[in-house]
This record gives sequence, structure tokens and C-alpha cells, in this order.
Amino acid sequence: MFQTFDSVSDPSLAGPRVARLRAWLAAQGLDGFLVPRADEHQGEYVPARAERLRWITGFTGSAGVALILSDRAHLFVDGRYTLQAAQQADPSIFSVESLIETPPPAFMREHLPQDLAIGFDPWLHTIGDAAALKSAVEARGGRLVALERNAVDAVWDDQPAPPLEPVEVHPEPFAGRLAKDKLADLAEAVGKAGAGCCVLTDPASLAWAFNIRGNDVPHTPLALGFAILRAEGLPLLFLDERKLPMRTEAYLTQLADLMPPSALDDELKRLASAGTKVGLDTALAAEKLRTIVEENGGTVVSMADPVRLPRATKNEAELAGTRAAHRRDGVAVTRYLAWLDRQQPGTVDEIGAVTALEEVRRKAGEEAQMRLRDISFDTISGAGPNGAIIHYRVSTATNRVLGDGELFLVDSGAQYQDGTTDITRTAPIGQPSDEMRERYTLVLKGLIGISLLRFPSGTRGADIDAVARMALWKAGLDYGHGTGHGVGSYLSVHEGPQRIARTGTEKLLPGMILSNEPGYYKAGAYGIRLENLIVVTEPQAIEGGDKPMHGFETLTLAPFDRRLIVAEMLTAEERGWLEAYHARVVAEIGPMLGDEDRAWLEGMAGAV
Amino acid sequence: MFQTFDSVSDPSLAGPRVARLRAWLAAQGLDGFLVPRADEHQGEYVPARAERLRWITGFTGSAGVALILSDRAHLFVDGRYTLQAAQQADPSIFSVESLIETPPPAFMREHLPQDLAIGFDPWLHTIGDAAALKSAVEARGGRLVALERNAVDAVWDDQPAPPLEPVEVHPEPFAGRLAKDKLADLAEAVGKAGAGCCVLTDPASLAWAFNIRGNDVPHTPLALGFAILRAEGLPLLFLDERKLPMRTEAYLTQLADLMPPSALDDELKRLASAGTKVGLDTALAAEKLRTIVEENGGTVVSMADPVRLPRATKNEAELAGTRAAHRRDGVAVTRYLAWLDRQQPGTVDEIGAVTALEEVRRKAGEEAQMRLRDISFDTISGAGPNGAIIHYRVSTATNRVLGDGELFLVDSGAQYQDGTTDITRTAPIGQPSDEMRERYTLVLKGLIGISLLRFPSGTRGADIDAVARMALWKAGLDYGHGTGHGVGSYLSVHEGPQRIARTGTEKLLPGMILSNEPGYYKAGAYGIRLENLIVVTEPQAIEGGDKPMHGFETLTLAPFDRRLIVAEMLTAEERGWLEAYHARVVAEIGPMLGDEDRAWLEGMAGAV
Repeated sequence: MFQTFDSVSDPSLAGPRVARLRAWLAAQGLDGFLVPRADEHQGEYVPARAERLRWITGFTGSAGVALILSDRAHLFVDGRYTLQAAQQADPSIFSVESLIETPPPAFMREHLPQDLAIGFDPWLHTIGDAAALKSAVEARGGRLVALERNAVDAVWDDQPAPPLEPVEVHPEPFAGRLAKDKLADLAEAVGKAGAGCCVLTDPASLAWAFNIRGNDVPHTPLALGFAILRAEGLPLLFLDERKLPMRTEAYLTQLADLMPPSALDDELKRLASAGTKVGLDTALAAEKLRTIVEENGGTVVSMADPVRLPRATKNEAELAGTRAAHRRDGVAVTRYLAWLDRQQPGTVDEIGAVTALEEVRRKAGEEAQMRLRDISFDTISGAGPNGAIIHYRVSTATNRVLGDGELFLVDSGAQYQDGTTDITRTAPIGQPSDEMRERYTLVLKGLIGISLLRFPSGTRGADIDAVARMALWKAGLDYGHGTGHGVGSYLSVHEGPQRIARTGTEKLLPGMILSNEPGYYKAGAYGIRLENLIVVTEPQAIEGGDKPMHGFETLTLAPFDRRLIVAEMLTAEERGWLEAYHARVVAEIGPMLGDEDRAWLEGMAGAV
Repeated sequence: MFQTFDSVSDPSLAGPRVARLRAWLAAQGLDGFLVPRADEHQGEYVPARAERLRWITGFTGSAGVALILSDRAHLFVDGRYTLQAAQQADPSIFSVESLIETPPPAFMREHLPQDLAIGFDPWLHTIGDAAALKSAVEARGGRLVALERNAVDAVWDDQPAPPLEPVEVHPEPFAGRLAKDKLADLAEAVGKAGAGCCVLTDPASLAWAFNIRGNDVPHTPLALGFAILRAEGLPLLFLDERKLPMRTEAYLTQLADLMPPSALDDELKRLASAGTKVGLDTALAAEKLRTIVEENGGTVVSMADPVRLPRATKNEAELAGTRAAHRRDGVAVTRYLAWLDRQQPGTVDEIGAVTALEEVRRKAGEEAQMRLRDISFDTISGAGPNGAIIHYRVSTATNRVLGDGELFLVDSGAQYQDGTTDITRTAPIGQPSDEMRERYTLVLKGLIGISLLRFPSGTRGADIDAVARMALWKAGLDYGHGTGHGVGSYLSVHEGPQRIARTGTEKLLPGMILSNEPGYYKAGAYGIRLENLIVVTEPQAIEGGDKPMHGFETLTLAPFDRRLIVAEMLTAEERGWLEAYHARVVAEIGPMLGDEDRAWLEGMAGAV
């Protein structure tokens, strides 16, 4: 299993650990320390070694920061984790604060006692974050002190070692372009940005630029490391050689000067001393990198990670791969939904549902000789009221039977070598209520609204987010998350910069993969979310029209549950989309199903 | 007539005028001068005295800047004026540049010769603009020199005097709140922003805050002047006393310390020297004000004009007034459309159409004893291809007969004491083509889409702009302007900060009046625009819903032309809206029409 269900949290551990940390800080003359849930690469997933926030607080969420002072401690989390943080972190030690309303800089500006020395690990905070923290601490007469050694590491005896999972070459048929060609383009981009070199800190950028994949963090095929791209000359690639099988090492040696991660500081110092202008993405790069450059006579050029847009706009090979991955995944999910529908209400629980889904994905991968490398995130498997918790993670403590008359929300995805998937369906367990059916139909109207859109070049994700909400809004309903996030190509299931959300200020470009996932959540009762992945198409002329328009091609192939659709609530155009989509699912997925499952699918895909 | 039709432009005048300006500049040791189309108040309309750009270039558009150097001159205009500028400004003197792609700061950074002294009038540029200009000129090794006297004024012998139109009190039944109560709130807002006082530079803010109206610029009832709001104590109001009838002066004396405009500098110096923190809106306030404050020891506090949001969110009296104004205006426009429909194709021209419309509005005002004070802007009266020019202004030179088989676009508005209107309808002259009907229907779908929206608190105009475009986009069509602008209450027909556009980052608040005006323009052939004014409603609970939702109440009352509507292209929901709207127009406007016009209206309002 790629997923575990233990509730990894023992609030009693925090007391002695915090005490040791405080003693260590006091010995260094420090009054506090910041513990972000981050590693040197600022990704969504971190290796076990970097789960410092979990170790010191007990809080297991995927975002948060602790500020530990000598006589008090604060844990900052966002709205989805408020309850969980209060349960997992000992309330006699940690007060829970809002990461959104009062993030640490704002909080410290108001509440930090005067004249403190607050330590931080400059490898774990971005340049932008560090500047905000510094200014806040100094506004209270204090000092922000960059530590040479992380304070948690200093007192964490059995801290895991850095991961050393093997790095493999991502073959050209999947990547669609040779790494040397990508690297040549990137070198040119670095020069154009006015820099002599640029540090890549995001392992997803490394993976894309060098056509490599690793296994250092859960659910995303990343090899943790750094690179320095140079406007002239080979890039420098900092990867632990113990992670490199012979074949990979031979491959990478052609592309870059390979160096151990420990050499990054010295190489950067060398470049800085030689007067090189060093490009850094201030929203991604560690503060430590800035100080190395500036303290050694170099100049920082602020530039966006040059890999972001090329990575986001998938090429034809990547698109062909993702289509194949989605067909394979659609077979698995359709079989799964059919199986689920054959179970008596009350006989399956959320963990059983996750296990069955992973199993059916594994089988579909084996059949296609394209094995399931991982799930792309922990499956959200929410029955009844648990479905209303947007980022629900089932554990043995919360596991719930899928009961008669409930809705079951399942949001899951797979990592295959040819593509990353992410799909949500909501299924009725037994007989759904009229209200459930009406609201399911409203959510479906939102998904169809996005699917049917055409739009001119220059349109941003922010411009179209409301299209998915209009039907819900008219019924006095809404959902508290964006409509879509970017998705990588056998990479992160949450990939920027593209997104369909009010914060989506990036233009939608051909080849960008996005999720289309409106929802509705009735607290304490049920959740509905419907999610397809879609890809922005090239602008195409429309007969009789003036200008070519982009649109979305739908990648995901699995039926919507007709028992939850109120046909009269759909317009003719919406019904037409749904029928065509279901006909496509039957045509592409049907032939790969057994008789029983195919009959079930055909039943689901009938006219609503 | 409030509108004129002469083509006020003689390109031959510019030569000698520019020569005199250059001689004057040379005598001052200056190498160039910037001439913006602006006065001290940065409004859309300026008094004749401030039409410096028109005087020196011949260009009559409502936005632009000239940069006049000793041996060359550049005229910066936006896309809608490119052609017009090239016709009106002598091309042997002025090269036309894009105000959007390369505004003067960007242009000068690239093209300005080194080491020049460029003069500017610090009363005519905002603080933000002046900073951008200064940095650009200095990047070329030059100096930006603030002049004590405007260089154009120095050589413009017969420059008109400042306007001295009478200022009248805007009665409380229309304003809905006493000025003294508004001023007390504003004083509090100034204090809360951390300022001791705040300079109001926008005459629309003066008008709203003091409940006064004037007549100093065309089509907008503004009295040009300034005020200094103080956190403590009476405001200072700078208005030429020759504009104040005895009754108005007596009224204002209760509210403010009245002073002549010439006293503004000294009063501001006095406040600055006393250490007062002076609030200025850097996007609105003249650079001169900043320098007065800072050169006299004061501190500038950057704050948004505190009147903007209170003015934008109309109160119940203002809303009642605007509803009455729209009924009255709807009677006029409906009569007008019925009259137009009775004319044989080829018998009316664009100027005749404007004249007839102003006449019918005047008559409706007289009937209701609420006289037409002005039109709210020059009527856009575009037949056939002229309808495709988004900001078309008919002149004797361009006047065109409304020909058989053409579309006629008429965008117009009125200023009544109880409200400002703005409406666009598109009428068929003779038999329209299928293409015209299809595209009209797509535009109508956009207007209806906005009309039917419900939305949660916090929604911004930018979030919903695409809703008006979706139907057009699907047909490969679009329009090159925002969907809606804010509208004042017997004030500017273009009022900020509310707008429905990609740039509309302000939240939509109850009481904000906006236009809803999607369009479609086929260059060289025809234009279609449909415009209703709408007002944001209070959030209301929706049966069965979770959260109250805002919506839009439609203010404008006049029929859409059923001969241009393809009924099958409308959804049931859209047809329902259209039928209910037409039923409302018949019920509210019908009783005020004569038999012939009422029969026409009822015909238009029948089922599509």
C-alpha cells in the first residue's frame, strides 16, 4: 500500500522535546525559533528528515509554522487544519493561530515581546518570507538570527537520514524533448533575464530540466537536489551520487557537472566572488542562497524559476502520455465504481474503499504493463459527514462505514510513468435524497460550464473561476476552494503557476493541465466534488467567428452517477455535453472492461 | 442642444503654436514639455481652459499626452484614437505613439535623447505619474523640471478663463444624507487613516461630500474646486466665490471655512509647517500638492480618496431617485425607439437621430417636472459601419444616413437631478441579416447572464466579467472593452472604483450602480451594444441555500428589439428573464405612453 491509515500523533511527546529545544536555544543566547513545515525545496511533500514541525508539535498537516519562544509557543495553521492542530498539538504548550489572518510576521508585529533574538534556519525560508520575518522582528526591537545549524536537528536524536532513493532517467518518449535541448533553452532564458547563472531549487524543475525522476518524498517522483544553470557552459547538478545508478550517472554526466549537494555553497561562493549575477526566484529560493551570494560579492537577480512555464505547457509526447494514463486510470476507476455499486450499503468502510481503489489501480497498471508507481496523493475517502471535510484523510481513528442513504466522496490519483492523474467522483450509497441530487446536479453544471468554455488568448484562470460557481450561487451555495489547480506530467499533482481560481493571474496557455473540480460541502452531512483533469487546447478557428479560441480537452474518463443527476436542471447544451462525454467513456473505457462492469458503465452512460 | 456636431480640428493651427511654445521653452532653458489632456482634478471632462492638448495638437480625443521636444514631438493616444490622432494632428509635427504599449515614461526610457531638461506642470500630473516620469527622464541622464507656469498657458493668448458657473445645493431628498453627517464620517475616516487632514482633489468627491452640484465641465454637474478635510475641525473648502449664489454661500458657510482657490497653497503650507500629516490619493492628487507638503516640513500619508466608497454605495434616497430617473428616461427612449421604427429607412441621419433623442428626453423631463439638466455624455449614434467604432462621435464630417438593412447603435444618457442614466440599444433599420440576429442574440445572452447572476459577498467585478462573454466566445467572438463601469448619482456617468472588467479588483457592494453592456463590433460593417444599468442588491437568503447572495436589480427600462432575437438560441432561463423584463417595461413605462407608442411597445414585448 502507498497509503497508511495510522493516526501518527501523540500529543504527550511534545513536552520533553520542546523543553530540550528551549534548553538548546537558551545555551545559544536565543529567545525563540521558527519551525516551518518545509525543507530546502519548498515543496508540498517533504522527506521524513524534514518533518520537524510534526516532530516538535505532533501536528501532521501539510502546511504550518511553529514559533517557539522561551515561555510560550504558537502553531500557525490554515482554516482546514484548525481543529486538527488543536487535537494533535498539546494545548498546554501550543496556542493555535491562523496562518492566513495572522501569519507569523503579522502576529509578531503585534504580539512578540520586545528585544528578542529569534533564530531561524535560512535554508527553510524563502527570500521573501525571510524579509517579512526580519522586518517584523525588528519592528519589535528584536533580531532575526540565521542559524548555521537547525535548532530542531540539534536536539532530534533519531532524526532520519536524508532519503537516498534511486534516480532514474525519464525516457524521451515520455518527456518529448531531450534534456540537452531543454537545458540549452534554459541557458538562453537565464541570459535573457540578465543573469549569468540561476539556481534551480525546486526538485520538480530539476526533474523536468534533466529528464529524471526520483523517489525521495511521498507520492511525487522527485529527486531532491539543486542545479545551477549557467548562461554559458554546462549546468552544475548537485545530487548525492549514492542516489545515482550507473546508468543514470552516465546519462547525467553528459548533461552537467555532477557534484555532491555539500558542494553547492562553495560553488555559489565561487560564482559570486567572480562577480556573476545569480538569478533566484524570491518566492521559491532559500534565504540562505541569497546570503551566500551577497556576502561573497555577488548580485542577486530576481527572476521566476525559468522552468515553470515550459514545464506547465506540456508538449505532444507528454499529452499523448497523459491521455494514455487517463484511459488506464479510467478503466481502474470505472471498475472501482462498479464494484462499489455492487456492495451492500453498510458493508464497506472508508479504509476498505481506499484499499480497493489502490488495488484496482495496481491491477490496471499491470495489465497495461505500465505499473502504478505511486498514488499521486493520499486518497480522500469520505463517507457522509467526512465527505464535507475538504482535505479529509482517513485514519483508523476516523474510519467510517459507507452507510445507507449517504454520499461517498472519493478523490484520488495515480502516478504512472506516462502521466499523473487526479479524479474525484461522488457516489450514492443506497437511495440519495432529492437535496443531494439537486446539489450534485448544480456541481455538475459547474464542471460542464468549464468544460464547454471557449476563450481568447490572454484569458487567465481568475477570469473563469466564477463560471464553475454560477449555478451554485443562484441556489445560495458555494464552495470554499479554487476550481482548479495545475497538474504535472509524472510530477507533482499540484503544479504551478496555472490555476483556475481568484488567485490565478497566469494566462492559460496551450498544453497546461488543470483540474476542474467544483464541489459542495454540507458540514456534518455530506460532501460532493466532481473532478476531471482538462488541458488547454491551441486556439482554433470557429466557423463564422472572428478570432480563434482556446478550449479545454477533457482527459479524465469515468462516468458521473446518473442517479444523482436531475435531468430537468440541465440545459440542452449541458445535456449534450454529458451525453457526448459518457459516449466517449463507453467508447474508450468500455472495451477494456469485463461484461459485468461494461454493462454497469453503459447503464450509467444512458440518457439522463 | 447639449451636443454639437462640428469637427473641431484644424491641423494647420498646430505649426505656429508649437513654434511659439518651443521658443518660450528655449528661453527658459528647457528642451521639452509634457502636455497631458488633464486639469488639476484628473477628471474625464475638463473646462475649455484646460484643453491644452487640443490647442497645441489639434487632437480632440478625451485622453492623451503630448511630449514636445525642440526638434520633434510625440502624441500618445490609446487604440480607439490612433486613426483620429493621425488625422487631426499634423503628421509633419507629431508622431503618434501608443499610450498603452509605450506610455511616456516607457517611451522616454527608450527614446529620449540624453541629458535633456523636460518641463512639466506639476498641477496636471498625479503623484504616481510624476514619479514615473521623473525616473524615466533621469534614466536618460536628464532632469524633470516642475514649472511654476504652464508653458502652453504662457503662449496661449486667448486661453479661456476658468469657468464660473453657479453652484447649487443638491437637496437632501435626493442626496439622502445631510452634508454635515457625511463630513463627520469623513473626518473620522481621515483620522483612522493616520492623517491630520486630507486634500479632496476630485470635484465629484466635493460634490458628494458637500451635497453641491455645479456646471463647470460638460455633461457632469461638477463645481471645480478643492477641499481639505480635517480629522478635527471644520473642513476648508476652496471655491471661487463668484460661483456661489447667496443661498449656496450661506449653506456652505455652515459646513466649511470657505476660501478662494488661490488660498489652497498657503493653507496647505500652513498645515505642513505645523507638522500635520496630509493624506493624498497618489492616483488622483496633483504632484504639486505633494511638493507643497514635503517642501514645508509636512508628511504625506498615502490614502485612497475617502469619498470613493461612500459615494459609490448609493443610499436608499439615491436609489429611489435613480429608479425614478430611469422610468422617466425609459419613457423617452421607448418613445424614441418607436418613433425611429416609424421612419422609412434612408430618411434619418445620425445627427437627426441625436437631435430627436435629446428632444424626447427634454420633453419627458418637462412632463415630469424634473427637467433634463444635461445629457450625461455625447450620444454615440452610429449607423452601419459607424456603429462598429466603439467611441464614435458623430460630426458633420462623418454624419451618415441610417440605411436599409443596417443596424443602428445608440448609446446615450441623461442627467436629471434625481439620477444619471446611460443606456444603449441597437435597432434594425429595415430587414436585418441572419448574422446580425445571431450576434445580437449572443450579446443579449451576455447581458442576461449578468442580470441573472447571484454572488456571495467579496465577489469583485473582475470575477464576473467573463459571464457576459461566454456565449460570444463560443462563437469565436468577443468585444474589446470592459463589461461595465460605475455610474454616479447625478454625477459622473463614469464613476469608480466599481467596474465589471478584468481590472475590476474592487468588491461589489450593495448600492453600487454599474453598467451591463456587452457588445459585438464587426469592423466596417456594424456594431451591436446592449446596455442596462444595474445596482448591486443587499445579500438575500435564497430558499434552501446556505448563504445569502447579492444580485443585480435592473434600473434601465426600455425594450430589446424582438426582430433581432433568435429565440431558439436562448435557454429557458434566459427567455424567462427576457419575458419578465419586458413585462416590467410594459407595466412601468406603458401607462405613460400614447396609444401608438404603447401598442408598439407591447408588440416588442411579446413572446419571442
